[in-house]
Amino acid sequence: MSEPDLRHMAHALSLGRRGMGRCWPNPAVGCVIVSQNRIVGRGWTQPGGRPHGEVVALAQAGPAARGATAYVTLEPCAHHGQTPPCAQALIDAGVARVVAAIEDTDPRVSGQGFAMLRAAGIEVTTGVMATEAAEDHAGFFLATDHGRPFVTLKLASSFDGRIATASGESRWITGPEARHLVHGIRARHDAVMVGAGTARADDPALTVRGFGHRVQPVRVVVSRLIDLPLMGQLARTAREIPVWICHGPDAPSEIRKAWTGLGATLIPCALHGRQVDAASVLSGLGKAGLTRVFCEGGGTLAATLLAADLVDELVGFTAGIAIGAEGRPGIGAMGIGRLAQAPRFDLIETRAVGADVMHRWQRKV
Amino acid sequence: MSEPDLRHMAHALSLGRRGMGRCWPNPAVGCVIVSQNRIVGRGWTQPGGRPHGEVVALAQAGPAARGATAYVTLEPCAHHGQTPPCAQALIDAGVARVVAAIEDTDPRVSGQGFAMLRAAGIEVTTGVMATEAAEDHAGFFLATDHGRPFVTLKLASSFDGRIATASGESRWITGPEARHLVHGIRARHDAVMVGAGTARADDPALTVRGFGHRVQPVRVVVSRLIDLPLMGQLARTAREIPVWICHGPDAPSEIRKAWTGLGATLIPCALHGRQVDAASVLSGLGKAGLTRVFCEGGGTLAATLLAADLVDELVGFTAGIAIGAEGRPGIGAMGIGRLAQAPRFDLIETRAVGADVMHRWQRKV
Repeated sequence: MSEPDLRHMAHALSLGRRGMGRCWPNPAVGCVIVSQNRIVGRGWTQPGGRPHGEVVALAQAGPAARGATAYVTLEPCAHHGQTPPCAQALIDAGVARVVAAIEDTDPRVSGQGFAMLRAAGIEVTTGVMATEAAEDHAGFFLATDHGRPFVTLKLASSFDGRIATASGESRWITGPEARHLVHGIRARHDAVMVGAGTARADDPALTVRGFGHRVQPVRVVVSRLIDLPLMGQLARTAREIPVWICHGPDAPSEIRKAWTGLGATLIPCALHGRQVDAASVLSGLGKAGLTRVFCEGGGTLAATLLAADLVDELVGFTAGIAIGAEGRPGIGAMGIGRLAQAPRFDLIETRAVGADVMHRWQRKV
Repeated sequence: MSEPDLRHMAHALSLGRRGMGRCWPNPAVGCVIVSQNRIVGRGWTQPGGRPHGEVVALAQAGPAARGATAYVTLEPCAHHGQTPPCAQALIDAGVARVVAAIEDTDPRVSGQGFAMLRAAGIEVTTGVMATEAAEDHAGFFLATDHGRPFVTLKLASSFDGRIATASGESRWITGPEARHLVHGIRARHDAVMVGAGTARADDPALTVRGFGHRVQPVRVVVSRLIDLPLMGQLARTAREIPVWICHGPDAPSEIRKAWTGLGATLIPCALHGRQVDAASVLSGLGKAGLTRVFCEGGGTLAATLLAADLVDELVGFTAGIAIGAEGRPGIGAMGIGRLAQAPRFDLIETRAVGADVMHRWQRKV
């Protein structure tokens, strides 16, 4: 058996990422089918989660799949869901070998996809670029194993960590290039999430703009009492692009009714002190199928998520502007007494984006 | 006349930078003497400001300077100060040509150094890598033209712009690599400056460590009433490494006497409201000969300098730690109402330094 070609797996991973943010609750899988060193099929999981990446690639390959090698970024599924299992599709197509990046942790699949393939006489190699695949599928694995989505937290702030002046003026601290990149990051997530304060202050659309026509992420607002403007952008567009509201048990029933009437989905959550409990929010979003959530503030929600150690990735944009201590802090009170209690993150990447500095960090493991 | 060789000027500029932080009040000049495409002399302005870079290079070249080309990063001086003028030294050595980066703005030199050389029949070319030279000599030019040193402000903070927990714990937010780089930046400045709060809270040495034996920068503390610990590191070492205190007119005379007795130099400054006036501080430091000052906080002094538009360069170190809004802000209250009033800076450089992100900015021009 020859060594798997890493370039094909890298290709499959990049194809898989095309589905990110639009195939939840399914994983964003990429697949490349190679016959005699020629790519005969390429696929990725389609918007809505079906068909899966393998099926798309096999359809493109047609009879050329016979005797070929399939590179897949995740163990092919073995269970009959809304589609027949991909492992069966690979067997039926007559592929000779499957090279996978990583095993699925979904108990309906875990190891059984590979077993099905092997039982049919197909060569199986796994663990190829597993680290990269684990990152790409982190949201799917978290949802499967821990019942909550992957959380990316954004902070676009002044040099001194402020997101607005004392009077609330925030447009614009960072430049157009950074804001465009934020839309690109939104597109890679299943949902964009903000707290009630941000929804009231900024009346944001929370949509992906500047990337052509595409499936929009769900808009999530966390608001204990649902005190959100009934004439705002979210209210007006809730029928076209989903708006989900994570609220407390004491949200008035007439307000709940009003938002349901506007087309919003309500997700009741537990309280932690006087605020909606962050773990309860994420558990509700996980149950609803989300695998990747992008939180864009404000300071209170950011602090709640950080204090509960529920932030997987931090994305910072730092602008060359000084606002001073009267400005609004990007992260609210966290109740941290000692430095040793403060959550730490590892740097993944930093670079200039337009006039600003972008920096990405992942939770320390 | 052939084109000047930019590599020789780049070399001279890098030599000149070796003097930065230790030849004030003189400019840190570099000089390379080239004879028949061979470097026969290299020099830079020595600690204390004498001898000048040209004289060092000429001494190294000896008779080989005759007929050679001298690359200098600043117009050679034409006035008799504590040393004879460098223009005369170049004439006496018999150089055929002088290539300079930029004209001196000191009225005792401005254009007269070049005039002296030309009158002696020496070819003079100027404006070669003038932008780079203007940056390197920015402190000297500011001191000459505006009577104040160049100011670099550092902010080493958490992801959310905090420099300590609510209780004041700040060791360590950034990592050892970032702290080592800070010592390197100190070494390139004539003085390190902090506010009284930082001097009290951290009892810092404010020395350059980890770079071998070297001339230490002056330690400057801004303190209206000189309420500084008389048993602290600064007090104990003021006789070995200079300590200058910028104080208000109402600093008690017995405290002034105590600090003079400890070996400190007192610089009386005007007040602006209840604080020592930032412009008055810098004017006092400029009069005393400083050309480059590195301010390391705290938040109040940083805010005062920024609000007075007296910061020329910002250096940020951002760590992957979240402290929350109870933490101490890196920049204090600035009295900014509208975003348009906030000082803006242009990004020069950003990169990872150890586990942290370093970003440098210069005042928008």
